[in-house]
Amino acid sequence: MSKNVLILPGDGIGPEIVTEAKRVLDLVNEQCSLGLEFTTALIGGSAIDAEGVPLPASTLDAAKAADAILLGAVGGPQWDTNPDFQIRPEKGLLGIRSNLGLFGNLRPAILYPQLAHASSLKPEIVSGLDILIVRELTGGIYFGQPRGIRVKEGGIREGYNTYVYDENEIRRIGRVAFEAARQRGKKLCSVDKANVLEVTVLWREIMEELSAEYSDVELSHMYVDNAAMQLVRAPKQFDVIVTGNMFGDILSDAAAMLTGSIGMLPSASLDVNGKGMYEPCHGSAPDIAGQGKANPLATILSAAMMLRYSLDAGEVADKIEAAVSQVLDQNLRTADIMSEGMVLVSTSQMGDAVVAAL
Amino acid sequence: MSKNVLILPGDGIGPEIVTEAKRVLDLVNEQCSLGLEFTTALIGGSAIDAEGVPLPASTLDAAKAADAILLGAVGGPQWDTNPDFQIRPEKGLLGIRSNLGLFGNLRPAILYPQLAHASSLKPEIVSGLDILIVRELTGGIYFGQPRGIRVKEGGIREGYNTYVYDENEIRRIGRVAFEAARQRGKKLCSVDKANVLEVTVLWREIMEELSAEYSDVELSHMYVDNAAMQLVRAPKQFDVIVTGNMFGDILSDAAAMLTGSIGMLPSASLDVNGKGMYEPCHGSAPDIAGQGKANPLATILSAAMMLRYSLDAGEVADKIEAAVSQVLDQNLRTADIMSEGMVLVSTSQMGDAVVAAL
Ligand SMILES: CC(C)[C@H](C(=O)O)[C@@H](O)C(=O)O
Ligand SMILES: CC(C)[C@H](C(=O)O)[C@@H](O)C(=O)O
Repeated sequence: MSKNVLILPGDGIGPEIVTEAKRVLDLVNEQCSLGLEFTTALIGGSAIDAEGVPLPASTLDAAKAADAILLGAVGGPQWDTNPDFQIRPEKGLLGIRSNLGLFGNLRPAILYPQLAHASSLKPEIVSGLDILIVRELTGGIYFGQPRGIRVKEGGIREGYNTYVYDENEIRRIGRVAFEAARQRGKKLCSVDKANVLEVTVLWREIMEELSAEYSDVELSHMYVDNAAMQLVRAPKQFDVIVTGNMFGDILSDAAAMLTGSIGMLPSASLDVNGKGMYEPCHGSAPDIAGQGKANPLATILSAAMMLRYSLDAGEVADKIEAAVSQVLDQNLRTADIMSEGMVLVSTSQMGDAVVAAL
Repeated sequence: MSKNVLILPGDGIGPEIVTEAKRVLDLVNEQCSLGLEFTTALIGGSAIDAEGVPLPASTLDAAKAADAILLGAVGGPQWDTNPDFQIRPEKGLLGIRSNLGLFGNLRPAILYPQLAHASSLKPEIVSGLDILIVRELTGGIYFGQPRGIRVKEGGIREGYNTYVYDENEIRRIGRVAFEAARQRGKKLCSVDKANVLEVTVLWREIMEELSAEYSDVELSHMYVDNAAMQLVRAPKQFDVIVTGNMFGDILSDAAAMLTGSIGMLPSASLDVNGKGMYEPCHGSAPDIAGQGKANPLATILSAAMMLRYSLDAGEVADKIEAAVSQVLDQNLRTADIMSEGMVLVSTSQMGDAVVAAL
């Protein structure tokens, strides 16, 4: 029974880091007879260059047909100036999320003990940090209609977007978050701006409603401005955070940065059936692309998450995660996580080390 | 030539901290013959309790008539459950901002050398931190129409808000930020989400346009998710940040928390003529209200900002700021900034100390 994995290298450092993750997947595929079959497709800026659009129909078809998707990263300055807002690398990513219904975005922020010093926060504030941010990924202001730039009376231009959620959308991401909290520390903090935004008044109400079904999970609510403060002040107070698309974008990046090693953090974006797209939390880092400096570990850990959540191979995922921990114990570091006394390695050398550890 | 100052104590710790700031104002008013006349009015939860609405017409009239306004804080759990969304303490604050056209919100995030250890970030990351966040305060998603909760086909409820800015709104807050940057480090970072939201595509365009008029200021752009990360990673890279109402709410709280002493940070909200409302960056802290634990220094420093920006008494503001620095040098600390070896004082004792220093 073979399984299809679609690989989307994307832009910037995407191809380099995906290459290393693919080597790891090839190895475990053979070692453990997983029956994985791989195809590769274009997305983002590289798709714009080759086919004129950030999400070619062939890529979308391949994504629909796949059992799971591994993505590198998209974007770069050379595509940022395209006057047609639809022809931007990010639109490829947003299009695949939306067309595949990948509404459940899981973003762990974990501090690796070997990298504790890398955080800009004091060790006592972050040591042992292990938060999961559950971000709604196919709704909210990212996709709300109407949207655009129009000319008002008097010739004045006005830009507008719509922040919208219906109760079903809120309920389904709420369930993902409650389930995740149940598997972890049983604490869920829902983040909103219910003192100002009506859409989040509904959000809070539905979360409250759901909590009746999850009496083993302790639900709390926090305003987004306070959540941004609390993440800086005392991040270990959190277990699971659930929030909408825009707030989730901001808070998950802040949370990831607390660990000081965003190059280490994977993410999963899941549909209702658990099919998913997996990608590192970091971006395409065009400034270091092609130089062998990128850290492939977040992508390798994303591949592990993919095996666990979408390919029913949790034990193989455990093995990969153990191998990553082992290379850190061997003091191997890419530039982003380098520190005194450690051994600086390139992207492919880091890949070599993980492969060797497996 | 007398000047009218409206005092709005508000809720929670609001009355306590405003009392201390008022003592300081009374003193300098006499010492320096400033000719200030004070009136007091209700806002927020205390106005709801007394008059049924968070912003009584008499308060709004007094605010319009005043030359400057000093606000404590609004809000508390006892008013959060009112089913009528218009009868919430926050609506009083939003109403006064909007009705008085206080669009220019200045939020400094400064690390006081005496409190350097209070930050959750490593000293080398935050020492000497001095950022100014310029937040648009009367537009964006806070005030955009349409908004509400409606029932869709099939009986499904849907919440919605509108994120909208026209070019004039963007231009006028842009000018405030460019002018501020010109007075400081001459670096302005405009924060948006122009890779996803059309309204911020217009935002970015107008900021670019404006930069032609301010060739002495270096303008850069950053996506809001990255800005949240960079504030955690390396906040000293920023001088002035300009952004919309919602992003400004989130980022200014995160920035304030970087200093570890949000109880120290004042803010100003200005209209087109420089008339303003002044308030501490922190909230109403209902959990410690009435216990004499609150730190009055942010409110005292807000009073200083008021003297400088709206009452043409910059030298008096300097004196107050020097007095605050002096009480910190005397090792006096309220609970929120307390540390080993320091002297714990109450709200009114801290007020006493500032008055004595003056
Ligand atoms: C590239 C961008 C559209 C995207 C987002 O905002 O969702 C990214 O920041 C992310 O968080 O995955
Ligand atoms: C109380 C609330 C409405 C307010 C806001 O969101 O603007 C507060 O958080 C602030 O930043 O002044």
